[in-house]
Amino acid sequence: MKLPVSTEWVLHCASTLAQLEPGTTASAAQLVEYYDLPAASLAKQLQALVKAGVLSATPGPRGGFRLARPATEITLLQMVEAVDGVSDPYQCREIRQQGRGALPADECRSVCILAEKMAEAYNAWRRSLAGVTLADILATLPPSAPARTRSRLTVAARSATE
Amino acid sequence: MKLPVSTEWVLHCASTLAQLEPGTTASAAQLVEYYDLPAASLAKQLQALVKAGVLSATPGPRGGFRLARPATEITLLQMVEAVDGVSDPYQCREIRQQGRGALPADECRSVCILAEKMAEAYNAWRRSLAGVTLADILATLPPSAPARTRSRLTVAARSATE
Repeated sequence: MKLPVSTEWVLHCASTLAQLEPGTTASAAQLVEYYDLPAASLAKQLQALVKAGVLSATPGPRGGFRLARPATEITLLQMVEAVDGVSDPYQCREIRQQGRGALPADECRSVCILAEKMAEAYNAWRRSLAGVTLADILATLPPSAPARTRSRLTVAARSATE
Repeated sequence: MKLPVSTEWVLHCASTLAQLEPGTTASAAQLVEYYDLPAASLAKQLQALVKAGVLSATPGPRGGFRLARPATEITLLQMVEAVDGVSDPYQCREIRQQGRGALPADECRSVCILAEKMAEAYNAWRRSLAGVTLADILATLPPSAPARTRSRLTVAARSATE
């Protein structure tokens, strides 16, 4: 059971964008340099965050990405699911209905109790991630973090356009 | 994020073995026929359950598998982890320490807050599965289930040795 490696990228990039001054953006190139990530793969994941309503993208040479909503309204779950989709890791293929032990279809109208319990665990995981916002993450950073982040992003920007 | 298809197999096979008369066993061949599963793959998963202390295996032509512990002491988590291992689906590769934004190592002595929150969600998933035993599953089955299960397994046994 593995989430894509890019899950770490999107969580960190969104946390970085959450530290920008209001009204400013960061480009994909800046984020690529900031975290030393593969450009094409990151661009794809940033688009997934846009599609999920987590980020908004401004086109053009001065454009870039910013949060589409306040950091208090963006959860870890929204970002993880933007990358990995929404799907219980447990796959029920109804083996209870096959082989010599097969149960008749009319005894299988409700979800198998095993699939139900696995889904409860998945829901516990989702609830945990839905309970953490980007604002919660930012609140744990040292007070000097946003200024440092913005300064390092600016260096990356300058270098990327040189 | 996916669990192996065999997760469903082991949960069902253990639930089936939990319905045997005390002191009796079922062979891998019986379980293969009971659920119409691929023999070699199932055999491998049954061995994983033995290794995890969920099942015990009796060798020989009259041998087979039975629960290694009472059904009240076998959890869904133990079976899932016997198949898939113990590993947070979120992979933290410490991208906070790379690129232009790299934090100095001495600021990264504790786990990244994002990895910490992802681990909390994983632990919520594990706790949920650790809270469900095979006995809980059996308690939800209709009273007629164990007799039916044993009878279908016996048919499979007879056929498998013919």
